[in-house]
Amino acid sequence: MEERPLTGIGPPGRIAAPGEGIGHDELALAARNHGLPLEAMRYEVTPAGLHYVLVHYDIPETAPDPDTWRLTLRGRLGTPLELGLRDLRALPSVTHRVTMECAGNGRARLSPRPVSQPWLVEAVGTAEWTGVPLRAVLAEAGVAPDAVEAVFTGADHGVERGVEQDYRRSLPLPVGEDVLLAHTMNGGPLPPQHGHPLRLVVPGWYGMAHVKWLRDIELVDTAFGGYQQATAYRYKQSAEEPGEPVTRIAPRALLIPPGFPDFMSRTRVVRPGPVRLAGRAWSGYGPVVRVELSTDGGNGWADAEVLPQGGHPYAWQGWHADWTALPGSHTLLVRATDASGRTQPLEQPWNRGGFGNNQVQAVSVVCR
Amino acid sequence: MEERPLTGIGPPGRIAAPGEGIGHDELALAARNHGLPLEAMRYEVTPAGLHYVLVHYDIPETAPDPDTWRLTLRGRLGTPLELGLRDLRALPSVTHRVTMECAGNGRARLSPRPVSQPWLVEAVGTAEWTGVPLRAVLAEAGVAPDAVEAVFTGADHGVERGVEQDYRRSLPLPVGEDVLLAHTMNGGPLPPQHGHPLRLVVPGWYGMAHVKWLRDIELVDTAFGGYQQATAYRYKQSAEEPGEPVTRIAPRALLIPPGFPDFMSRTRVVRPGPVRLAGRAWSGYGPVVRVELSTDGGNGWADAEVLPQGGHPYAWQGWHADWTALPGSHTLLVRATDASGRTQPLEQPWNRGGFGNNQVQAVSVVCR
Repeated sequence: MEERPLTGIGPPGRIAAPGEGIGHDELALAARNHGLPLEAMRYEVTPAGLHYVLVHYDIPETAPDPDTWRLTLRGRLGTPLELGLRDLRALPSVTHRVTMECAGNGRARLSPRPVSQPWLVEAVGTAEWTGVPLRAVLAEAGVAPDAVEAVFTGADHGVERGVEQDYRRSLPLPVGEDVLLAHTMNGGPLPPQHGHPLRLVVPGWYGMAHVKWLRDIELVDTAFGGYQQATAYRYKQSAEEPGEPVTRIAPRALLIPPGFPDFMSRTRVVRPGPVRLAGRAWSGYGPVVRVELSTDGGNGWADAEVLPQGGHPYAWQGWHADWTALPGSHTLLVRATDASGRTQPLEQPWNRGGFGNNQVQAVSVVCR
Repeated sequence: MEERPLTGIGPPGRIAAPGEGIGHDELALAARNHGLPLEAMRYEVTPAGLHYVLVHYDIPETAPDPDTWRLTLRGRLGTPLELGLRDLRALPSVTHRVTMECAGNGRARLSPRPVSQPWLVEAVGTAEWTGVPLRAVLAEAGVAPDAVEAVFTGADHGVERGVEQDYRRSLPLPVGEDVLLAHTMNGGPLPPQHGHPLRLVVPGWYGMAHVKWLRDIELVDTAFGGYQQATAYRYKQSAEEPGEPVTRIAPRALLIPPGFPDFMSRTRVVRPGPVRLAGRAWSGYGPVVRVELSTDGGNGWADAEVLPQGGHPYAWQGWHADWTALPGSHTLLVRATDASGRTQPLEQPWNRGGFGNNQVQAVSVVCR
């Protein structure tokens, strides 16, 4: 179905008042969706169930029957196509290890806070996605000369800021050669919450581009103006301005919190002496070339050792540094810089949707 | 290690002030841990990654090497034992389908709100657990006549309300014949967040009893007085009183929210006409014998059809009812009653830890 107004159902977009705590609406999203527990960065490939998940509406009931499920390709194509799961699995496939991050990661730390899914810092994960390069499928169908974008429609359906819609996003043509129609995650079928049976994977881009429960691709001759493209997922300062589109992932480094935690505050406790600090770093703009660590709250910085990409250009890179913990309270900060020169801010610039945040992470550690 | 004081690290237990929103500390727990998206109740057995998870400290790095990992059994036993994973897998095993719920489910709806993991209603899941009956292993080792409890220690380590500890709980002897040392979840190895490689499963009890990352069992001749047994997980009105232990799961029915949602409010939208309402119901005190549904906010109630347990005495039961939606706003309520006569309150009685809540669920639906 096309998008259509359905007003008066949910609240309009809003910014929290100064000092306003997280509300039940934000909490309901936080309880449904989930981040990566940061200690799980110890795994190069995130095990099932630990990778972050953001579902806008409901996880749809997707037909598990490979005989009836179809992906449709239509619009400005030489030959419209219908592909079943067996068709897709029979096509030559590739596997990419991809670090995916939600565009709203860090939103709940903004001041004032845009009211939406309230991520702190953990909306990330890395998986091995296997599927068919979209380019190959489009070449088979024949792209019309006047086609400018591909519009991807998922099976998830809901209302958002007064617009009833199937989740839908577009990419400009030609799509990157790394864009996949992924039918396999970490060697198995996609779990329901990750888009079973098929999702788009757009390496290097924030999560909103990786359309889950993909059921239709339409090639169009004008820029797609749907809700998720033209209204949401834009960098803006006010609701009225058109803003700039959210696309690739800004660089970020995260630390595996050392020692052990306090249950409620998540403050870390370490013993005096040598501590190996390690974590992951990534960017959608190229390899991470530098990770800096501060163990004194940002006064001094020292380079950590960054591991090479090792044949996985779309995945996070490991990094580590050695620290000698002395008794007292410490704030550890980490900062990544990528090959394009992009780095992480100490103070987060604000935008109304709360997108693209990559302020340096701060981890409180008490050494006893 | 034994429990020991480690004061001044985290905050003391506290109750939120009237009107106080969810804080960053509670949000950090909500972002790490996660509930069952309610539409996933459509699956009789919850797929991996959708089952609720609560981890007190960090997911520990448990040795995947079956040659080195050991479960130790010691204390008031005829023969102390060390069992490897191969030993456990070679013993006769059974499979139980078990509905598990967090003892703190519903805490965030309490007023005033105990500050801890802020669940709304979704901390539940059902899995097929395969493992060795604990009774058989204890019989092999020989239980001393003076043994009164078994103390179970997990590999997860942290600080909680000033007490440094490995997560540790006990059960009175003799343990139920249904208590398992589970090495398999839904037919595969346990995921890291569910206790890999071994967890205790205590059908019918709230989640705190199902010790994850189980590494040690000690039979003792006096009641265990550890933090998670004697301080936390007690029904109390004040911090000072000893309270009553949290044990079995109170009855609850949940509705799979009908129609489709608004992203932010989770309000449901349905079309006018017949709507099939369905969900799950469970109790740790016996089968659910009745599910009642109100479609007018609690004025009128009608019985739903409850499916029998079907050979799975520890798992939730399906239920369904037909409703004709008329244009307007509706509040749907569901209430379960079990064979022991226990049912769900309309107003939630309060306790300081926020445990054992089972107030009837209310789902807001707009029919357009």
